[in-house]
Amino acid sequence: MSRENLHDTVLETAARKDGDLNQRVVEIGRRIFELSDRYQPRVWQKAWWLERTTRMMDGDPRLRTRAFQFVDCLPALRTNSDIARHLREYLDPHFVELPRGAYALIGDGFLHGARDEVIGLLTRRGARGMAGRFITGFDTPSVVRTLRRLRSCGMAFTLDVLGEFTTSYAQADRYVHSYHDLIDRLTPITRSWSFVPGIDRDDRGPMPRLNLSIKLTSLDPHFDSIDPDRSIREVSRRLRPLLLHARQAGAFVNIDMESSKYHDLTLELFKRVLSEPEFRDWPDVGIVLQAYMKKGEAALADLLAWAEGRGTRFAVRLVKGAYWDAETAAAVRNNHEPPVWTQKWETDACYERMARAMLEHARLIRPAFASHNVRSLAVVCAVAEGLDLPAGAYEVQMLYGMGDPLKHAMVEMGRCVRVYCPYGDLMPGMGYLIRRLLENTSNEGFLKQSFEDRSGRDSLLADPASVRPPSAPLPARRYSNTCPEGPMPAFRNATNTSFASADNRRKMIGAIQYVRGEMGRKYPLIINGHPVSTDNWFVSHNPSNPGESVGQIALATPADADQAVAAACKAFHSWRLTRAKERAALLRKLADRLGMRRFELAATMILEVGKPWREADADVSEAIDHCRYYAEQIEWIESRPRRRNMPGEDNLLSYGPKGVCAVISPWAFPLAILTGMTTAPLAAGNTVVIKPARQASVLAAKFVEIIHDLGFPPGVVNFLPGDGDVVGTHLVEHGEVHVVAFTGSAAVGTQVIQCGAQVRPGQGFIKKMIVEMGGKNAIIVDDDADLDAAVSAIIESAFAFAGQKCSSCSRVIALDAVHDGLANRLKEAVESVVLGPAEEPSTTVGPVIDAEARDRINRYVETGRHEGRLLVQARLPAHCDRGYFAAPVVFTDVDPAARIAQEEIFGPVVAMLREESFERALEIANGTRYALTGGVFSRSPDHIDQARRGFAVGNLYINRRITGSQVDAQPFGGFKLSGTGVKAGSPDYLLHFMDARCITENTLRSGLVPNEREHLETT
Amino acid sequence: MSRENLHDTVLETAARKDGDLNQRVVEIGRRIFELSDRYQPRVWQKAWWLERTTRMMDGDPRLRTRAFQFVDCLPALRTNSDIARHLREYLDPHFVELPRGAYALIGDGFLHGARDEVIGLLTRRGARGMAGRFITGFDTPSVVRTLRRLRSCGMAFTLDVLGEFTTSYAQADRYVHSYHDLIDRLTPITRSWSFVPGIDRDDRGPMPRLNLSIKLTSLDPHFDSIDPDRSIREVSRRLRPLLLHARQAGAFVNIDMESSKYHDLTLELFKRVLSEPEFRDWPDVGIVLQAYMKKGEAALADLLAWAEGRGTRFAVRLVKGAYWDAETAAAVRNNHEPPVWTQKWETDACYERMARAMLEHARLIRPAFASHNVRSLAVVCAVAEGLDLPAGAYEVQMLYGMGDPLKHAMVEMGRCVRVYCPYGDLMPGMGYLIRRLLENTSNEGFLKQSFEDRSGRDSLLADPASVRPPSAPLPARRYSNTCPEGPMPAFRNATNTSFASADNRRKMIGAIQYVRGEMGRKYPLIINGHPVSTDNWFVSHNPSNPGESVGQIALATPADADQAVAAACKAFHSWRLTRAKERAALLRKLADRLGMRRFELAATMILEVGKPWREADADVSEAIDHCRYYAEQIEWIESRPRRRNMPGEDNLLSYGPKGVCAVISPWAFPLAILTGMTTAPLAAGNTVVIKPARQASVLAAKFVEIIHDLGFPPGVVNFLPGDGDVVGTHLVEHGEVHVVAFTGSAAVGTQVIQCGAQVRPGQGFIKKMIVEMGGKNAIIVDDDADLDAAVSAIIESAFAFAGQKCSSCSRVIALDAVHDGLANRLKEAVESVVLGPAEEPSTTVGPVIDAEARDRINRYVETGRHEGRLLVQARLPAHCDRGYFAAPVVFTDVDPAARIAQEEIFGPVVAMLREESFERALEIANGTRYALTGGVFSRSPDHIDQARRGFAVGNLYINRRITGSQVDAQPFGGFKLSGTGVKAGSPDYLLHFMDARCITENTLRSGLVPNEREHLETT
Repeated sequence: MSRENLHDTVLETAARKDGDLNQRVVEIGRRIFELSDRYQPRVWQKAWWLERTTRMMDGDPRLRTRAFQFVDCLPALRTNSDIARHLREYLDPHFVELPRGAYALIGDGFLHGARDEVIGLLTRRGARGMAGRFITGFDTPSVVRTLRRLRSCGMAFTLDVLGEFTTSYAQADRYVHSYHDLIDRLTPITRSWSFVPGIDRDDRGPMPRLNLSIKLTSLDPHFDSIDPDRSIREVSRRLRPLLLHARQAGAFVNIDMESSKYHDLTLELFKRVLSEPEFRDWPDVGIVLQAYMKKGEAALADLLAWAEGRGTRFAVRLVKGAYWDAETAAAVRNNHEPPVWTQKWETDACYERMARAMLEHARLIRPAFASHNVRSLAVVCAVAEGLDLPAGAYEVQMLYGMGDPLKHAMVEMGRCVRVYCPYGDLMPGMGYLIRRLLENTSNEGFLKQSFEDRSGRDSLLADPASVRPPSAPLPARRYSNTCPEGPMPAFRNATNTSFASADNRRKMIGAIQYVRGEMGRKYPLIINGHPVSTDNWFVSHNPSNPGESVGQIALATPADADQAVAAACKAFHSWRLTRAKERAALLRKLADRLGMRRFELAATMILEVGKPWREADADVSEAIDHCRYYAEQIEWIESRPRRRNMPGEDNLLSYGPKGVCAVISPWAFPLAILTGMTTAPLAAGNTVVIKPARQASVLAAKFVEIIHDLGFPPGVVNFLPGDGDVVGTHLVEHGEVHVVAFTGSAAVGTQVIQCGAQVRPGQGFIKKMIVEMGGKNAIIVDDDADLDAAVSAIIESAFAFAGQKCSSCSRVIALDAVHDGLANRLKEAVESVVLGPAEEPSTTVGPVIDAEARDRINRYVETGRHEGRLLVQARLPAHCDRGYFAAPVVFTDVDPAARIAQEEIFGPVVAMLREESFERALEIANGTRYALTGGVFSRSPDHIDQARRGFAVGNLYINRRITGSQVDAQPFGGFKLSGTGVKAGSPDYLLHFMDARCITENTLRSGLVPNEREHLETT
Repeated sequence: MSRENLHDTVLETAARKDGDLNQRVVEIGRRIFELSDRYQPRVWQKAWWLERTTRMMDGDPRLRTRAFQFVDCLPALRTNSDIARHLREYLDPHFVELPRGAYALIGDGFLHGARDEVIGLLTRRGARGMAGRFITGFDTPSVVRTLRRLRSCGMAFTLDVLGEFTTSYAQADRYVHSYHDLIDRLTPITRSWSFVPGIDRDDRGPMPRLNLSIKLTSLDPHFDSIDPDRSIREVSRRLRPLLLHARQAGAFVNIDMESSKYHDLTLELFKRVLSEPEFRDWPDVGIVLQAYMKKGEAALADLLAWAEGRGTRFAVRLVKGAYWDAETAAAVRNNHEPPVWTQKWETDACYERMARAMLEHARLIRPAFASHNVRSLAVVCAVAEGLDLPAGAYEVQMLYGMGDPLKHAMVEMGRCVRVYCPYGDLMPGMGYLIRRLLENTSNEGFLKQSFEDRSGRDSLLADPASVRPPSAPLPARRYSNTCPEGPMPAFRNATNTSFASADNRRKMIGAIQYVRGEMGRKYPLIINGHPVSTDNWFVSHNPSNPGESVGQIALATPADADQAVAAACKAFHSWRLTRAKERAALLRKLADRLGMRRFELAATMILEVGKPWREADADVSEAIDHCRYYAEQIEWIESRPRRRNMPGEDNLLSYGPKGVCAVISPWAFPLAILTGMTTAPLAAGNTVVIKPARQASVLAAKFVEIIHDLGFPPGVVNFLPGDGDVVGTHLVEHGEVHVVAFTGSAAVGTQVIQCGAQVRPGQGFIKKMIVEMGGKNAIIVDDDADLDAAVSAIIESAFAFAGQKCSSCSRVIALDAVHDGLANRLKEAVESVVLGPAEEPSTTVGPVIDAEARDRINRYVETGRHEGRLLVQARLPAHCDRGYFAAPVVFTDVDPAARIAQEEIFGPVVAMLREESFERALEIANGTRYALTGGVFSRSPDHIDQARRGFAVGNLYINRRITGSQVDAQPFGGFKLSGTGVKAGSPDYLLHFMDARCITENTLRSGLVPNEREHLETT
């Protein structure tokens, strides 16, 4: 016979042997089922509570989790009303959908105001019934009754004092004491019992009647493998006297096995203590091995080797393992290899292998097999049979309250059946109870499968290694695939008015007339929803015609500011609790209202700050965009918090408002920026005190008027026009102002930041400073630029609204090759701008804001005459004489270090610089303390790329004007001395007004991992 | 006949008429094709350049866009090397994939260093050929040659001076002048030409030979419908003399129609000027209507009504419209209804309806039909036939260089064909040229369709209204569905060491021995990659045994700090330009190295700061997590910037580093926080100066050593151990430090913030202050809590690392019902803690950091004795005498306002408070100036929910310990006086070290919208 043939024959024989064994397993299994069925009608009755509960939960894992969580906390509830309240909370229909009829089941009227007493009573009764099913008793007499009953059915027992894990030495002492007490009480009783052959004696002799199971984690609060010597020392300090006591009393002690982190330490301790001289020859001890441990077989081999050395037999109980959920959840959470098999069939197969090894070494150990799985038990019987072991050579163990027909069947088949009997208080035993309930309600549970559907029994008797259900990976960390900053639905910006429409032109002219008609109006402060008049008032003038007053505004004092902040503080407590949806709805109404009054608001801007038609109209559009954008954002942020859920642990990152926000807004975008800085904190749940720029106070007053008409609660928005030096400073310094949103010059902005950074006595937070400042924005014109496009972009960027935008262009850096051509075109273009009052529709350059601004600009123009060459200065037409006009001007041959090339002028003044290379032009562009906007006109992909990487500005524009950013599409804001790096109209903006909170919930309760169970214990 | 029948009959008749017409259209169309084909071989030859280009681009829209963009900028390129450079950039293989053979075509060797002269020459030649195909000439003689040729073929012409849109009056003046000049030069020449019957005379009499087309946007830089009166005044100021001149010279002037925003204004101006007495009776003028305008028919009706009133005929040219791409792109961008039909068939159908109306009113106007679409032309002919109009009653117009066979066919069919002849400089005419090229390379182009595939011609002759291709929506704004903060791939945290493994225990013991062996070492500063020794050194002690030195560390001076900052500044210039991938790779190597030296680093921590084994090990894990997390984050941020692309405009939001970051790290998490605060700025591209806590300097030195071994460039990480007051303050104040990352006490932190907020002279930015401070963290224990779980979480949260974590628990707020039970358990648990040197594996509470800390804690314990009742104080075992030990202590009956309930002690001291209700407990929990961590033990879903909403802390933990946050899963950081709201280990963290930049690129060039074309003009 060749080697191959020999090999084949060996395999064949093995297969035949396996086949024979499986054949025998099926026979025995069928016999077990048969016998069980006889006891079925008499014994197999689920408790009413359990049955109903089980059925109810079948369809809804969430309900199942909630119900178990409720059961878990039940023992801690003291009064009926506590119980009723918790039941209501756990079964809140917002979280779980109860099946039809469930309400009737759990007390019918509990949602209709049933009296707490009734609910409490029913719940307690249910709980008692449930606990009584799995727990032997709460005191010695009740336990003794149970044990007697078991013996009368021919069953032995092992007693387990409920409790796992301890937090103190005192608790450990009490636990040990309860075992000593048990031995003292039960020894005389058990001795008085009459002899039962199958259980009081095995194949080798008499067996102790009193049998105890004990958990080591209950014996030491620091039971930990990090220091095995210390742990063993501590534990054995309590264990040793107990073992001695038991030995003296003739009782048996089994050391239970718990979660995997104690596995090696438990075995080590067992071996060490039982090797000690006083215990070395004691046979009445036992240990547990778990088949779900990957290292289960190795542990068995190690134990058998030690047993050989010890020379005295002891018991080994083989279980499958009871902590699978928690083990796998921890493995996923802590990112380590699970110590347990992840497939049910792997555990079952391992159980069979270990069972065979134990039976084969019955001379060294007394094998005990704990299982409710007929296949597993049948394998044990068949293997023992094959080894010619007598029935008394091993024990079968099952849990109290589970698989009673199986127990009877095994007794009838002459096996020694020992019942695991927990005993004691429910509170420390909750982990045990929950594990039992989980098994009994799981669809994978063997008992449920085998007795509910008899037709499938044969498949339950199949070799697990031959079944191998498709491999399911471990439950992974769950990531929500959303984030607050994620892809929002497309945002639709408001549409600007088309002045190609004659109708719109008429409306605008009408609106200007209307606003002019209102010019006598007085505008009070608004604090806590009430208009507040003051002693002093100031007048807002039309810069196109300063003789014309646009309105009178109340001048706030620091005392008014204190009141406004107090009102905002008070309003915050309820405003922060409003739902995002509600706040968003108000902001959308605000957007609608701004849209409805678009022409009036634009007209007010035209007259109050001298903004030309089209830009005033765009200012309103941007304001509308802010309202809608932040409304959408806050709904998004609230509805899609970032989740990092893992088995047994939910993690959520969410955002909440900070408090009172002082809004110090500029006149340059008197509606858009004011609205943005106001609606963002409002959306986020903050309350607001508005200090508008003096020069745009009437417009701001109208804005606040609109807000109040919409039904924002009083105090949520307060209006505090006045002097920046007085009221603005007071707000920035105020110890109750949490956020300062400021837009203005760098000079003031840096002071604001410095001032706000001080933590004043009693101020319990760091102020958030959201500060946007100026720019010295450059447009680079490359040598391949489209000069027509460049010229028109420069004209628009530099001179629209008379250059009074923080985004305005004030430097042009031209490459040599195009410098002169560009300068010529620019000169001609400047000579062609239309200067005039803002209300004239054709005006492209209106007035500057006030006399001070005009004078400052004129001083810069004087400076420019010394620092460069005046290329062109537009001619002021005669009808501009009345207003504050500054003629657009361009200087060439300006040194990059010149004042007019470095300082923000905030007027229609452009310094033109000449550079040789694009690289150098970029350097010069970056060579100021600002970094707000910048532009490049180039048709060189490489140069455009260089600018993308190296042009240090918050908003870079390529081949277009550098003003007119749109909400969402072009988040606006700069860095360096241009700002704090906050981008208005961006997905991040709202977050600056909020605090992030991470909420971690441990969802594991008594070993229950919500919705993550995939495996089972001891079945 | 009933009404219904009558109606049916009318419909039938209409249908029959339509059928008849379509029949006739097909006949005429076939005839046109037939005649065209005869001219095909002779005339229909695409220019070589165009044909090749077209073919090359067929497959790749990106290449097509790039090629057109190159063509667009070509006229601006002055030298051969400019041309060569641009060609290389536009056809960079990184962006476009050139088809096989293309390299040969565009000069073969241009990527292999062909000489720029060759490339320039070939490109110019190609461009000349291309331009010459569509542009009549660049000077009078060349134009006259072309016009003669056309007349010899029987074709008339209209001359168009290239140029649209002007930026100045001077430019407008030059444009008008060129027309005057043209009239002056051509009038004598055209008069000298011999009479051609079909074109010099129509059905009513002679026609002007000189025919000019003019664009109004070239006549005024402010041509704008916002002020129609002014625009008309300005434009007619230039137009009127031109019209007079033309009339005197007997020339014809046509006013062209441009983009929709000028539509109404152009018509209005036409009507006004042509109603003026001097022009009212002049017939030799024309206007254009566009069939793609939705209001095209209404405009025609209005014009016809006006024509009736005027009483003198004038010409109307019907086109389809040439700005469809730009019109629809703007509509999408600006969120308004497109003024043009969005479906090609709608335009075609509208053209036919308008053509019929024009022909029906030929008594009022002279109709001209501009199209290269055979169906459209056939419809015109068929309708005219049906109306019995003579062939001379209307004109057919086509573009120079397009559809020549068609022109010949129409001439042969006796129609008057007028060719639109652009003339002049290419630069202003680029928009025109690009439009022509787009048509000729579009797959929808009629010409291409009809002459490349003859079999499909009949379908081209079908009624467009019957074809109606499936409606395609307008190109929408494109949003990338990614965001930097979006769902990252699952992050896998590092796995802690399992000390259940004997091997690992041995390794740790070995590492402690190893580190102890190194204790004599000296650690210098590291500046710019070089070790720097100093005059003064300080010793780091083992707090478990202060007699033991852990190492000597160089003491930095402010001068050293200046050098370190200078080195970091210098290194920043190149480090910021490294790719994120590269930086991430280094950080991952760092993570690996930390993992490899895990035991040594943990051992160093054990000996230097007295951190027990398991926590020291977790500290290393967290450090590793930071490296990997920020590496992943920066790759994510760089690779997935947020896009908001719209037709014609790309918007991108991206992030770049800020500069030099000072890292002032604490000793509490001496590796984890140091690593986090260092790797985040490094990942972001910043450079770093590390000022570690004195007490953890040796560990920090080892960390920096590892970094330098890995090949980080010199200066990127500098190491500056020393005194916080001296070196720390100096760094915070430094004018070149952009970011300060500080973790420490609130007292120091607020000073740091205040100090950093000052903008010092010459400092060109606002400092970013990332400050994390302390906590006074509370755990609330509800009346239904699992007390065992609560006790063990409290013990761990309050006493691990001797309470020296900013996240440590220092307050326990227990509800009445559980207070005493909890206190008892807590007392027992505290009595059971294992106090000892950190290096003992079983130690659960080690020493505090130094004598100062011990004394401070002891003072607080004294305070506590007065403020509350001492519940328990652990007993210090004898072997703790040598070290800085503070025994864990719990006080009960503490008032919420007491110092020990309000101040951060940073030691193992717990104040226990009693409250009646959960609401009140929450209030008390929130009642400090801190908001870092907090915990709740409760099994009431409602209370948990309340805490989720109302517990004001950065990290809230439910039913678990409140320390031990994990990177990514639990972003860490608080607000109020606990920090600036920055969350370490969060998706936002890196962004705090970066500046956001929004880059907007106008991608529209000369009307070309990249990849968005879906419609065509004039075909």
